[in-house]
Amino acid sequence: MRKIRLGVVGCGIAARELHLPALKNLSHLFEITAVTSRTKSHAEEFAKMVGNPVVFDRYEELLDSGLVDAVDLTLPVELNLSFIEKALQKGVHVICEKPISTDVETGKKVVELSKKSEKTVYIAENFRHVPAFWKAKELVESGAIGDPVFMGWQIWVGMDENNKYVHTDWRKKPKHVGGFLSDGGVHHAAAMRLILGEIEWVSAVAKDLSPLLGGMDFLSSIFEFENGTVGNYTISYSLKGNERFEITGTKGKISISWDKIVLNEEEMKVPQENSYQKEFEDFYQVVAEGKPNDLGSPVQALKDLAFIEACVRSAGNKVFVSSLL
Amino acid sequence: MRKIRLGVVGCGIAARELHLPALKNLSHLFEITAVTSRTKSHAEEFAKMVGNPVVFDRYEELLDSGLVDAVDLTLPVELNLSFIEKALQKGVHVICEKPISTDVETGKKVVELSKKSEKTVYIAENFRHVPAFWKAKELVESGAIGDPVFMGWQIWVGMDENNKYVHTDWRKKPKHVGGFLSDGGVHHAAAMRLILGEIEWVSAVAKDLSPLLGGMDFLSSIFEFENGTVGNYTISYSLKGNERFEITGTKGKISISWDKIVLNEEEMKVPQENSYQKEFEDFYQVVAEGKPNDLGSPVQALKDLAFIEACVRSAGNKVFVSSLL
Repeated sequence: MRKIRLGVVGCGIAARELHLPALKNLSHLFEITAVTSRTKSHAEEFAKMVGNPVVFDRYEELLDSGLVDAVDLTLPVELNLSFIEKALQKGVHVICEKPISTDVETGKKVVELSKKSEKTVYIAENFRHVPAFWKAKELVESGAIGDPVFMGWQIWVGMDENNKYVHTDWRKKPKHVGGFLSDGGVHHAAAMRLILGEIEWVSAVAKDLSPLLGGMDFLSSIFEFENGTVGNYTISYSLKGNERFEITGTKGKISISWDKIVLNEEEMKVPQENSYQKEFEDFYQVVAEGKPNDLGSPVQALKDLAFIEACVRSAGNKVFVSSLL
Repeated sequence: MRKIRLGVVGCGIAARELHLPALKNLSHLFEITAVTSRTKSHAEEFAKMVGNPVVFDRYEELLDSGLVDAVDLTLPVELNLSFIEKALQKGVHVICEKPISTDVETGKKVVELSKKSEKTVYIAENFRHVPAFWKAKELVESGAIGDPVFMGWQIWVGMDENNKYVHTDWRKKPKHVGGFLSDGGVHHAAAMRLILGEIEWVSAVAKDLSPLLGGMDFLSSIFEFENGTVGNYTISYSLKGNERFEITGTKGKISISWDKIVLNEEEMKVPQENSYQKEFEDFYQVVAEGKPNDLGSPVQALKDLAFIEACVRSAGNKVFVSSLL
């Protein structure tokens, strides 16, 4: 099978630090043939890091070059829709960093574009490639904790002035719903939905507490999955603390972390894999081998975003997630 | 100052195991002069334990006996209103176990009765006498954790067939709102309100999961205090697990347990006092020394119940606690 010729579009933190190490390990599947970025010097630096692909001034030139089968979009989220649309118009596959879009309304347009196109639109949600979450899903579905009753996830991200994401222009004045709440939150929604299924309704309170972080930075929510499990998801992007992710069932409890799962008192190690690498492997299989696009499905990414948007809109009121979809 | 002559009304678990040890330590303040119980043998056994006060067949006879200045009511909660009313009609002070009543509607009548009477109606809420909660309040108000942002309280009571409360008749077929949710929950509401003040609104989901426990037994809620702190209170009366009670602020965190408070990493021991004894001492001071009835105030007890009733009614919808009051 021949390699996918990839155009990297946007050369920010995600491209350099998350995608590039993964792609370097997948040089048998992908060849980065073209690069572009709003800031040309960023594209040139990036090009040097990967073996001097062609650097284009403009995205349209990259798409017209005939040098790429697919583009890897790591952009300010408000550009996703238009950049995906242009790629599909030129018959180019897309892998695009989450969130799918700034809000559900424009995210739906991405879903529509993807349905109309024969080309793949793959929304890169690395949390759908994290072994710990799949192990948790397996344990819950095997009945290891009986019927799941309550899922509690408390996250204290503790971003301060030294955090690199804090200073990204598009994050400082976010056009995406809830700012950090959706930027980070779609990851958590993806993990929760992976393990416990669809979320029916949510009631939440979202706040802008930290002057350092653009947009909102605190969220606490309760919700109910379609399977009847009740959830509480609480996150602060500014405050520091220990993350806790636990699912309590009628017959036991699991605690989930990146490297291990504790089932009652029993500690289970979980394989450590690069979830970005796994998502590019999956993208390759979807594009080159006809594998169904389950894990990068725009519909899945839209549902992740819908949960967060429902939280942000709630102000303590009950919001059915499906009412946004 | 002379002793208060006390009639114990109802000789169940609360009277025998919670009130009696406290009253034995307070024999300089209280003399149990009369006893009555639905089951006469219970009253007779109880009487033997305290030095043979007069055993009455009927509550009305006890009230008319001229032997009591006050009654201690430890009854099925649905009897509180009528028993309080009768005592006040006879000019007898009342200390009555929480919850104030089965629901806010009838609880309001207790408040009205108490306002009209010159006699004291003291609702015994021992959580308002627990040193750990007062220490937590002091720490929060001193700014030790900065501005409080989030309070999380997860409780896994783990009642099984061996639990004595499970088999109480009036708990098996509860007439009080939410069953165990209000029976136990008013305690937690009292502690949360003591530490962080009034709760403005709540959104919650309540469930009846355990066939063993009468009425509802699971609750998860989010809410906002008037001071802006967001709370999550989650409780299961059937499932087992470790309790966690934490308040996170802009500058730190406290973890609250019965015997200690941990402020960030610093462990602070809290004095261990019998909260039932403290509540009877307080009742004495209110009745005999004219101390204001702050801690046993029916209005406070009504607000505790209103929070829980708001939770039970919510079904995921936003309920302003004041709308019940």
